[in-house]
Amino acid sequence: MPNFTRGIHYLKKLNAANVPPDLIENGQKRVIDASLTLIRERAKLKAELLRALGGVTASASLLGVPLGHNSSFLQGPAFAPPRIREAIWCGSTNSSSEEGKELNDPRVLTDVGDVPIQELRDCGVDDDKLMNIVSESVKLVMEQDPLRPLVLGGDHSISFPVVRAVSEKLGGPVDILHLDAHPDIYDAFEGNIYSHASSFARIMEGGYARRLLQVGIRSITKEGREQGKRFGVEQYEMRTFSRDRPMLENLSLGEGVKGVYVSVDVDCLDPAFAPGVSHIEPGGLSFRDVLNILHNLRGDVVAADVVEFNPQRDTVDGMTAMVAAKLVRELAAKISK
Amino acid sequence: MPNFTRGIHYLKKLNAANVPPDLIENGQKRVIDASLTLIRERAKLKAELLRALGGVTASASLLGVPLGHNSSFLQGPAFAPPRIREAIWCGSTNSSSEEGKELNDPRVLTDVGDVPIQELRDCGVDDDKLMNIVSESVKLVMEQDPLRPLVLGGDHSISFPVVRAVSEKLGGPVDILHLDAHPDIYDAFEGNIYSHASSFARIMEGGYARRLLQVGIRSITKEGREQGKRFGVEQYEMRTFSRDRPMLENLSLGEGVKGVYVSVDVDCLDPAFAPGVSHIEPGGLSFRDVLNILHNLRGDVVAADVVEFNPQRDTVDGMTAMVAAKLVRELAAKISK
Amino acid sequence: MPNFTRGIHYLKKLNAANVPPDLIENGQKRVIDASLTLIRERAKLKAELLRALGGVTASASLLGVPLGHNSSFLQGPAFAPPRIREAIWCGSTNSSSEEGKELNDPRVLTDVGDVPIQELRDCGVDDDKLMNIVSESVKLVMEQDPLRPLVLGGDHSISFPVVRAVSEKLGGPVDILHLDAHPDIYDAFEGNIYSHASSFARIMEGGYARRLLQVGIRSITKEGREQGKRFGVEQYEMRTFSRDRPMLENLSLGEGVKGVYVSVDVDCLDPAFAPGVSHIEPGGLSFRDVLNILHNLRGDVVAADVVEFNPQRDTVDGMTAMVAAKLVRELAAKISK
Amino acid sequence: MPNFTRGIHYLKKLNAANVPPDLIENGQKRVIDASLTLIRERAKLKAELLRALGGVTASASLLGVPLGHNSSFLQGPAFAPPRIREAIWCGSTNSSSEEGKELNDPRVLTDVGDVPIQELRDCGVDDDKLMNIVSESVKLVMEQDPLRPLVLGGDHSISFPVVRAVSEKLGGPVDILHLDAHPDIYDAFEGNIYSHASSFARIMEGGYARRLLQVGIRSITKEGREQGKRFGVEQYEMRTFSRDRPMLENLSLGEGVKGVYVSVDVDCLDPAFAPGVSHIEPGGLSFRDVLNILHNLRGDVVAADVVEFNPQRDTVDGMTAMVAAKLVRELAAKISK
Amino acid sequence: MPNFTRGIHYLKKLNAANVPPDLIENGQKRVIDASLTLIRERAKLKAELLRALGGVTASASLLGVPLGHNSSFLQGPAFAPPRIREAIWCGSTNSSSEEGKELNDPRVLTDVGDVPIQELRDCGVDDDKLMNIVSESVKLVMEQDPLRPLVLGGDHSISFPVVRAVSEKLGGPVDILHLDAHPDIYDAFEGNIYSHASSFARIMEGGYARRLLQVGIRSITKEGREQGKRFGVEQYEMRTFSRDRPMLENLSLGEGVKGVYVSVDVDCLDPAFAPGVSHIEPGGLSFRDVLNILHNLRGDVVAADVVEFNPQRDTVDGMTAMVAAKLVRELAAKISK
Amino acid sequence: MPNFTRGIHYLKKLNAANVPPDLIENGQKRVIDASLTLIRERAKLKAELLRALGGVTASASLLGVPLGHNSSFLQGPAFAPPRIREAIWCGSTNSSSEEGKELNDPRVLTDVGDVPIQELRDCGVDDDKLMNIVSESVKLVMEQDPLRPLVLGGDHSISFPVVRAVSEKLGGPVDILHLDAHPDIYDAFEGNIYSHASSFARIMEGGYARRLLQVGIRSITKEGREQGKRFGVEQYEMRTFSRDRPMLENLSLGEGVKGVYVSVDVDCLDPAFAPGVSHIEPGGLSFRDVLNILHNLRGDVVAADVVEFNPQRDTVDGMTAMVAAKLVRELAAKISK
Repeated sequence: MPNFTRGIHYLKKLNAANVPPDLIENGQKRVIDASLTLIRERAKLKAELLRALGGVTASASLLGVPLGHNSSFLQGPAFAPPRIREAIWCGSTNSSSEEGKELNDPRVLTDVGDVPIQELRDCGVDDDKLMNIVSESVKLVMEQDPLRPLVLGGDHSISFPVVRAVSEKLGGPVDILHLDAHPDIYDAFEGNIYSHASSFARIMEGGYARRLLQVGIRSITKEGREQGKRFGVEQYEMRTFSRDRPMLENLSLGEGVKGVYVSVDVDCLDPAFAPGVSHIEPGGLSFRDVLNILHNLRGDVVAADVVEFNPQRDTVDGMTAMVAAKLVRELAAKISK
Repeated sequence: MPNFTRGIHYLKKLNAANVPPDLIENGQKRVIDASLTLIRERAKLKAELLRALGGVTASASLLGVPLGHNSSFLQGPAFAPPRIREAIWCGSTNSSSEEGKELNDPRVLTDVGDVPIQELRDCGVDDDKLMNIVSESVKLVMEQDPLRPLVLGGDHSISFPVVRAVSEKLGGPVDILHLDAHPDIYDAFEGNIYSHASSFARIMEGGYARRLLQVGIRSITKEGREQGKRFGVEQYEMRTFSRDRPMLENLSLGEGVKGVYVSVDVDCLDPAFAPGVSHIEPGGLSFRDVLNILHNLRGDVVAADVVEFNPQRDTVDGMTAMVAAKLVRELAAKISK
Repeated sequence: MPNFTRGIHYLKKLNAANVPPDLIENGQKRVIDASLTLIRERAKLKAELLRALGGVTASASLLGVPLGHNSSFLQGPAFAPPRIREAIWCGSTNSSSEEGKELNDPRVLTDVGDVPIQELRDCGVDDDKLMNIVSESVKLVMEQDPLRPLVLGGDHSISFPVVRAVSEKLGGPVDILHLDAHPDIYDAFEGNIYSHASSFARIMEGGYARRLLQVGIRSITKEGREQGKRFGVEQYEMRTFSRDRPMLENLSLGEGVKGVYVSVDVDCLDPAFAPGVSHIEPGGLSFRDVLNILHNLRGDVVAADVVEFNPQRDTVDGMTAMVAAKLVRELAAKISK
Repeated sequence: MPNFTRGIHYLKKLNAANVPPDLIENGQKRVIDASLTLIRERAKLKAELLRALGGVTASASLLGVPLGHNSSFLQGPAFAPPRIREAIWCGSTNSSSEEGKELNDPRVLTDVGDVPIQELRDCGVDDDKLMNIVSESVKLVMEQDPLRPLVLGGDHSISFPVVRAVSEKLGGPVDILHLDAHPDIYDAFEGNIYSHASSFARIMEGGYARRLLQVGIRSITKEGREQGKRFGVEQYEMRTFSRDRPMLENLSLGEGVKGVYVSVDVDCLDPAFAPGVSHIEPGGLSFRDVLNILHNLRGDVVAADVVEFNPQRDTVDGMTAMVAAKLVRELAAKISK
Repeated sequence: MPNFTRGIHYLKKLNAANVPPDLIENGQKRVIDASLTLIRERAKLKAELLRALGGVTASASLLGVPLGHNSSFLQGPAFAPPRIREAIWCGSTNSSSEEGKELNDPRVLTDVGDVPIQELRDCGVDDDKLMNIVSESVKLVMEQDPLRPLVLGGDHSISFPVVRAVSEKLGGPVDILHLDAHPDIYDAFEGNIYSHASSFARIMEGGYARRLLQVGIRSITKEGREQGKRFGVEQYEMRTFSRDRPMLENLSLGEGVKGVYVSVDVDCLDPAFAPGVSHIEPGGLSFRDVLNILHNLRGDVVAADVVEFNPQRDTVDGMTAMVAAKLVRELAAKISK
Repeated sequence: MPNFTRGIHYLKKLNAANVPPDLIENGQKRVIDASLTLIRERAKLKAELLRALGGVTASASLLGVPLGHNSSFLQGPAFAPPRIREAIWCGSTNSSSEEGKELNDPRVLTDVGDVPIQELRDCGVDDDKLMNIVSESVKLVMEQDPLRPLVLGGDHSISFPVVRAVSEKLGGPVDILHLDAHPDIYDAFEGNIYSHASSFARIMEGGYARRLLQVGIRSITKEGREQGKRFGVEQYEMRTFSRDRPMLENLSLGEGVKGVYVSVDVDCLDPAFAPGVSHIEPGGLSFRDVLNILHNLRGDVVAADVVEFNPQRDTVDGMTAMVAAKLVRELAAKISK
């Protein structure tokens, strides 16, 4: 009898005499095709509606990527997308952005659902293929004019395949505004090149970004600073935030490239404002600091992500879910036009 | 401009001059097709593997139905399936059932993923169609020999489309062992015939069950008792459990019909054992009481569900998730052979 | 300037040159009179309604006594009455008792509100007077036929003034069924004769009870056992519950006296079933054990109390509030006829 | 038999053949009279004491209005007053305000207790009458010189009857400093003109305020801004707080009218500082921001309220109760002289 | 510069050119000697006191072994001993055992403090040496007549060095009553022979026990059952508890050997009764079941342990700490004479 | 039989005829000697290692003082040291300080363990002796060049014996930077001269400090301000923090005396940033405010403490533990050179 390992990876490690290898490979291929078809059809339906309604040139569309980085079955940020959606539409707040956009109007915000990450892993799909499926899904959204992807993580590892897809689809690099407690720019973390601590190294190596501005940094090692220099990253540490604030609240990005990508790691906020994260790092931004930076940003935001919200560490009443949801709402208002 | 309502239902209520009706209808149809294709492919892959491995005539396969009954976007039991899966495979327990089956062996337990309930609702699919999609999904699993559906709710409303599919697929009624604090047999609840409080009225009306045994009942109205009589339900209330126990721990079901269906509402347990439920009703079964009934049940279990686990009311450390997971594990061991 | 002490007791300890003593005394008297008038009017309104509806000879009416036993302002069980009321009527359960009485029928259950304990203390009313006001309030309810008091504590100290009033009003002793982890029969606790640990010593000394049965006892000292013997109390300890169970589930009380009084300290339950109590004492009764005793009790229940629920120690979702509420509901069904 | 509805409203909806209508009406009238008498007597006792002590021209006196806005029995902010009182006097902090007033001195702070809102509703008193009873209660406090009402909500709907009473009693409009995440100025919310989202529309319509300054606003719709303009409200949104701060920390109000009313909705604070609220809206004021505004306010504060603290969403250790209590303490110091 | 690893193990892995090896070895030796001296002196002081008081032949003395089994710094059960002590003496319960022993009498219960496990690890002491230090500490207690060790874990790995010491000191094997959800008898767990899952394999191999009775078992693999057979263990699984109960509530052990050792893993209890454990395994014993077994056990209990309480998973109010404390209290009453 | 009081103090209050007084006194003396020996040996081992490694003139070494101020056995801050250590080394953050020091290098941070406070109390050691043992322990660390004590409280009462030892060992006063919500400078608190509210009165009386700067103050009575003046304390209240900030972020201390001592009471932070404290006092510093003050402080920090973290009031995920740990990490970086 074959020696199966625990849970999700049995198909990947299956090595049974009477199971022909192409049986699994063919099955996986069919499951991947069906998964992408489902995303394509949802994006198409939403875009057809917007084009029929008319009067919209860019519209944010949610794409969930419930991918957690830990070794066990499902963990932390992998549970975030449905919680964020629930908080976006929950009855305790109204449907306007702070600057007056109506989020109930589908021309501002639609949803194309989740990439079925856990189900693909359960079918034995490996990390290389998963990253390609995420990129492919982002492109399927972008193909449906006027949709622009507003991605719900998942952990920060997803920013690499998302930005790669955005850049490849648009045909050139973007400028990135990256809010985070950590630079996520290590060459590899414990040998994993797809780690959530390495996504921006992959992005910079790939040439997918011209400028990378990192704001909120307060947990950084020597290697983090060296990698920053190596890739020409503009790192703004919290130690000097009171000095940098006027400049960061007056940014103009994306001119001369394909636009601006905004990546918000929820832990850019101080844990007082966002306790539901995996990496508690005191001394961060206030929620108003983040909104001031985003509201005053000048540039064409072509896509964005909100990542690393961990519902398993949130307060009982879901304060961080509301925080992540408001970030998504304000980004949707920023993207749509 | 059209007057859009909040969140998920905008497609259902959309009434805009420049949106042709068949645009949405056609899009929905394509999304439904893609959703079912994805379930079919996952079931097929898992079943092909089991048939290649050989030596198995019945095998439990998880099918998640994340359907909540409340009016707002996503709530309560709709979040349960990923939490139960996480708990099934979490590292704090081993991989054997109490009677010695190896859960790591795919011949005992596989997974075909979730019906994308929320994404279908977001595309404007109505409740009638949703119920049919659930039934269709169950049949897709049953078509793949030797898979048998072990359904993860979701609220109790899902038992109706699941049992309907099981009975239709097998070509006749089953016997049902139903563990619950409530009879869920009201004609309609607040006008909703698909309510989680009415699923067993629908099942009995449809002729999908010969015998229906309800165990753990302790919140029942006059109507509940009358409906019970009308349909010939065998209702065992907690008030007399100490007297009924020997009989309930020695059940033999399913002879002369198509087999046994087991439906476990987590609130059959006393809230001390399962606090993570929407309806706290003190005075219920202990976990060992439930296992004693299930372990000693004689009969061919052709399908089962575990419903009404509400992660939003669970303890911080997920005690009820572990409870639901152990119910699923023991049911998988019971089903597979 | 007078040296005022902290918070609630300033009126009691006030000793200012220019404040004439009768100013405060007269004011207190007027406040006490107004408090009792308010209870009388509420009881009268509810009783008039029931008498007009007709067909009822005994009906449970809630009277809250939010009295906590600790020295600081407001604590623990003093917060219980509104929480229990909320749980009685909360939407997650139905309106029938387990044996089929309709709690929505005012002939089964009404409410005369709370004795304004904290506001009286804030006016400088001392403990002796408070106890008399509680007794007086109980009598005001009993004067309004067919109302019978179902008292919501508060801590267990309130059972003394309540039972005293019941016995005085009915003109003789009652039999008491007392469910508790502790005997509450110490002569005085830290010098306080009104302590929640001494109420049953006061009751027995006063001759207000013929038989006193204590069930669920598992925290008792040498003095507790000696006081039990001295007063002829029938103490059933948890150590021997499996042996005593058949007798306790078949009690007949109140014959030859003025009826039965039932006093349920929520900590008679094991903390697994009722974590929201001040004194966690493992090894107690299950909720079903308690219901079995109450449902099978034969006798005319003339009044009852449910005490020592501490909302500040309850679970986030209020499991113990639901437990206390179900005890109240089943007692109301027992009382009314 | 009459068809009674659930819980609190049975008297309001009672329609039984044998119950004469004036039976209930007369009973309600007597209960209302007794309720107001109790408040009058408490206010009188406290005021007589202060007048005897002498040397005080204005003194804050707490009046609790435990009124929740939701349809079910008791919810959220209705539980707040006793929790705030407990936190005001709890042993973990001292008895001085930040600027040195002694809160233990009754000349700074007394208490006249709660309006028995829930008990009145249970007697079938409707919302119109409830609002009048709140106004009447406020006037009873103001009649007792030198007491000034410091009202503990309850939800924000109570500000309308409170301000109405203050203005009517003083004989003219006041200036209002209103700290809140929301403008609460909608014409009606889901058809309810007494909604907590409409109280300031009622106030402005009634002519009870000359100037209305709203500070902390960050959840406002188009209608909210239009209503603001219509009534000449000065709305300071969080988006521009860093620019407005110097002006807001240097306010002078109440000259030429009857004084200043301060209304503090606890959700003006960022949820990091006050998680125990019903409407989590990130991006708000810090606690120090609020104190800076209040400490530096110049003007005669004739009354105030602290509303929308929701104990059911507070942290386990009651952080928001401490926050609400400190707001009350500093407001008491501001009012008294 | 040397490449130091994280936290506690730097001394163990230190490999710096200019640090002579015997510098660390000698330092460790001195720290170990000082640690044992401190335990010896505490035991001596307590025993001298008891011998002076007189009239006692056996007395329980607490010895804490805060040893966690996970790889990171400090975790879970390593935090238990101070929490259990706090709960033993907390003011919410009295000082009698259920059968009437006075725990305030030092002749019943004293305390010799903790083995400084974490501080020894921080000095680079390895697991082999740690296990010997635990054994040595137990012997230091036993040398001081009339003290008998009542050990507070820590995880279950400590039972091996404790039982080894007890058996070596007494000069022969004991009988062991072992209450647990798991058999803890695996040959090694992930290569670790000192794992908390292997302690009873080590005990049986060493010949330290004649009979080993395991009660409460409900998570056991094929290997667990095989190891049980190999060592002649009497395994009582929960599946058959209702059948085994009369025998288990009437045990007589220790005759013909050196006495009885009782090892209570808190997870023998159902998680409803003891949620604060690392391995939630539904379907366990009730607290009363455990007390019934212990109270009725006949035999000379020479030592005992209470292990695997994990404060990091306990409820906010510490219910499991109270449970562990009551187990300790009742065991102390059982041991002392 | 002697009348033993509850728990820990029995040795102190023991008054039994047959126990000679010097039996206990001698035993205590031996236990104290052994306790100090253990600290000396741990300090020696760590210092020998650093001297062998070379290149370090000052290095922070943790010394835990788990001393709580309340009357019962173990409470609140007494549990803090192991929790802070766990958080310092937990895997969710990296090992660099914000300004780039490597905390994994023992030349930056070592640990000499805890003073066994609770075990000494359990042996009857009184408060006078305990304070001396704390002072003695601090000196034992300072004797081992290049170690400098970084003390983990415990409550704030420990700052007195720590500063006394630092000053006596260095031979003169230090300058103290004291961050706190309270001045802790009362003459005595409820008669206790060692109270955590009096430690800085003791320090100033003893002449152990030249300048004492208090930052973050927002709960201070008249006596607190008078004592401040009496001792020449520089008190910076939160009311004026926005004005004082530039000066406080540019401090230069310790010139002309023996150096700088930094004492951080975790409640200097607003409870939003540090909820896990015994005294919730809204309106405090942000975490970044504190770091800005510490990072910009110029002076030779000879010792420091972090006190009043109360794990029993922390969030479920230990946010305040992470806050306390980051304070310790940044202070270690500040001290070491």
